[in-house]
Amino acid sequence: MSLTIALDAMGGDFGAPVTTAAALKILHTQPDIKLILVGDKSTLTDALKLKPLNIINRISIHHSSQVVSMDESPAVALRTKKDSSMRVALNLVKNGTAQACVSAGNTGALMATARFVLKTLPGIDRPALMTALPTSKGHCHMLDLGANIDATPEILFQFGVMGAVVSNAIDNIKRPTVGLLNIGEEEMKGGEDIKLAARLMESSEVNYYGFVEGDDIYKGTVDVVVCDGFVGNVALKTSEGLVRMVATFLKREFTSSWRNKLAALLAKPVLTAFKNKVDPSNYNGASLVGLNGIVVKSHGSADIDSFANAIQVAVLEVEKNVPEKISKIVESFLLERQAV
Amino acid sequence: MSLTIALDAMGGDFGAPVTTAAALKILHTQPDIKLILVGDKSTLTDALKLKPLNIINRISIHHSSQVVSMDESPAVALRTKKDSSMRVALNLVKNGTAQACVSAGNTGALMATARFVLKTLPGIDRPALMTALPTSKGHCHMLDLGANIDATPEILFQFGVMGAVVSNAIDNIKRPTVGLLNIGEEEMKGGEDIKLAARLMESSEVNYYGFVEGDDIYKGTVDVVVCDGFVGNVALKTSEGLVRMVATFLKREFTSSWRNKLAALLAKPVLTAFKNKVDPSNYNGASLVGLNGIVVKSHGSADIDSFANAIQVAVLEVEKNVPEKISKIVESFLLERQAV
Repeated sequence: MSLTIALDAMGGDFGAPVTTAAALKILHTQPDIKLILVGDKSTLTDALKLKPLNIINRISIHHSSQVVSMDESPAVALRTKKDSSMRVALNLVKNGTAQACVSAGNTGALMATARFVLKTLPGIDRPALMTALPTSKGHCHMLDLGANIDATPEILFQFGVMGAVVSNAIDNIKRPTVGLLNIGEEEMKGGEDIKLAARLMESSEVNYYGFVEGDDIYKGTVDVVVCDGFVGNVALKTSEGLVRMVATFLKREFTSSWRNKLAALLAKPVLTAFKNKVDPSNYNGASLVGLNGIVVKSHGSADIDSFANAIQVAVLEVEKNVPEKISKIVESFLLERQAV
Repeated sequence: MSLTIALDAMGGDFGAPVTTAAALKILHTQPDIKLILVGDKSTLTDALKLKPLNIINRISIHHSSQVVSMDESPAVALRTKKDSSMRVALNLVKNGTAQACVSAGNTGALMATARFVLKTLPGIDRPALMTALPTSKGHCHMLDLGANIDATPEILFQFGVMGAVVSNAIDNIKRPTVGLLNIGEEEMKGGEDIKLAARLMESSEVNYYGFVEGDDIYKGTVDVVVCDGFVGNVALKTSEGLVRMVATFLKREFTSSWRNKLAALLAKPVLTAFKNKVDPSNYNGASLVGLNGIVVKSHGSADIDSFANAIQVAVLEVEKNVPEKISKIVESFLLERQAV
């Protein structure tokens, strides 16, 4: 089956040079995929010149006249950028031309615009940003990573349901375990909201594990880690900063003397495996779940491989039919509650 | 000048074997320090047997009959464990016998008991848990790491003041920069509390940098990172979990083949430097700042070196007179405000 993904080809720190190169990379490896590059026609035509015909047949350009800049206010983007590459790519998902949209553009604008254009699924109050993270055992999924700054118990519960559906669909885990991110001290464990969310999880079909702490994320204690967007965003960015510090440190040390350079040469397989394991670019592509359609957010600073990875995430979600699965589960949960 | 530190010698996952060994280690390297081991007399006497006289002269045992267990509720500990090693060690600070207390015991109980026994400094509403973290540039200080689950704007501001005082006192930085931990999206940047805290910082003597994000912690963007205890605890534990995953991964890879084992041998200086840079045990010892006295919390799972490190943190704070400095600055701020 052929599937079509719309790319916000102008978004991100680097725009067309990265998005078009990533698009061509994906088309090389995946013969069943079609891509629509949304953005300035002449820029994109230039970037695509001299490519093999079998690929050019599966890529098309959809002109749009505007670009949302990386520091633009989401409200302004929503109001004034109706022909932006981001918005038009989302429209293509809405009208069924594409099955998913990938953007490395302004996160706030993407979330606001996606929500406005695609709307949330019935029974879902707010979309959440979710990504896979490496663990000692494999990987887990974590949400919300910043689509909302806070969350009511009901919304945390909905995040848990969506996370479980994605983990089930993507990883084929039958009953994914769901943990609520909390802090360790018994007496003050969580505020009221998190306790109420725990109660909602317990009395539902969710395979609720209980509270987990920050270090449980990378231990792989649960398949799905649920938290509000503020906490999730801090945890994710703190992790990225730490990985970057470690990488910079190792690079500096491994080039600081001849002995160390030799060690680095010999240790190359280990260092490559390390990079593959923790490099955030291998985990690039956060899904905005809970919408009528698939939207994947790439890091703004993504390079070609990273952006290609984000496209892969979108492909996988289309193949696994994620929004429909969320919709079905949420519906059955709602019916269940009404029946009680 | 000789200074005396009281150790909760029964606290932590390992109790006396670790605390006494760490005590002896510190006494070996620091000729001006006296230590009081608080806990069960016979256990501690056994652990101290056959030690050189010049050291035994500087270590004493203060008997206490109870121990707060690691999973005990802080309220129960406070009410029923009046002769616990933890509480008695804190009493020794209160009555001036010791200048600081170090405990690897139950965090919640330590915080509740310390606050009850020592009280907060005038002008400080809540104590905060603070630690140094490695950055690309050196290190920064971060607070609150879990002494409180939330914080009003005024309390976040107080955290900023205390952090700046400690950074100034410990690192000799004249005007430490203070950042408020926030998330990136313009539109939703922070809730109301964090915005109000920013305004309080701006209109004060604090060298306020502005909002910082999770990755700024390890970049070393600011000298002091301020957040509420929930967010800080998650960020810290997430970091610890990530470091542990990376360490486990490197260890496994570096022993997976003869080539890799050889590489590890050659790379030993780099790997040791790496361990020294990011190993949480080198950063063991979080200060409970804002109290009438110095209290340092060690990780419960601390080994001898880690616990010794926590004692070092206490020594440094005594030498630098941290509580008095916080008190003076807070007082001058309060007077300033009243004068306006």
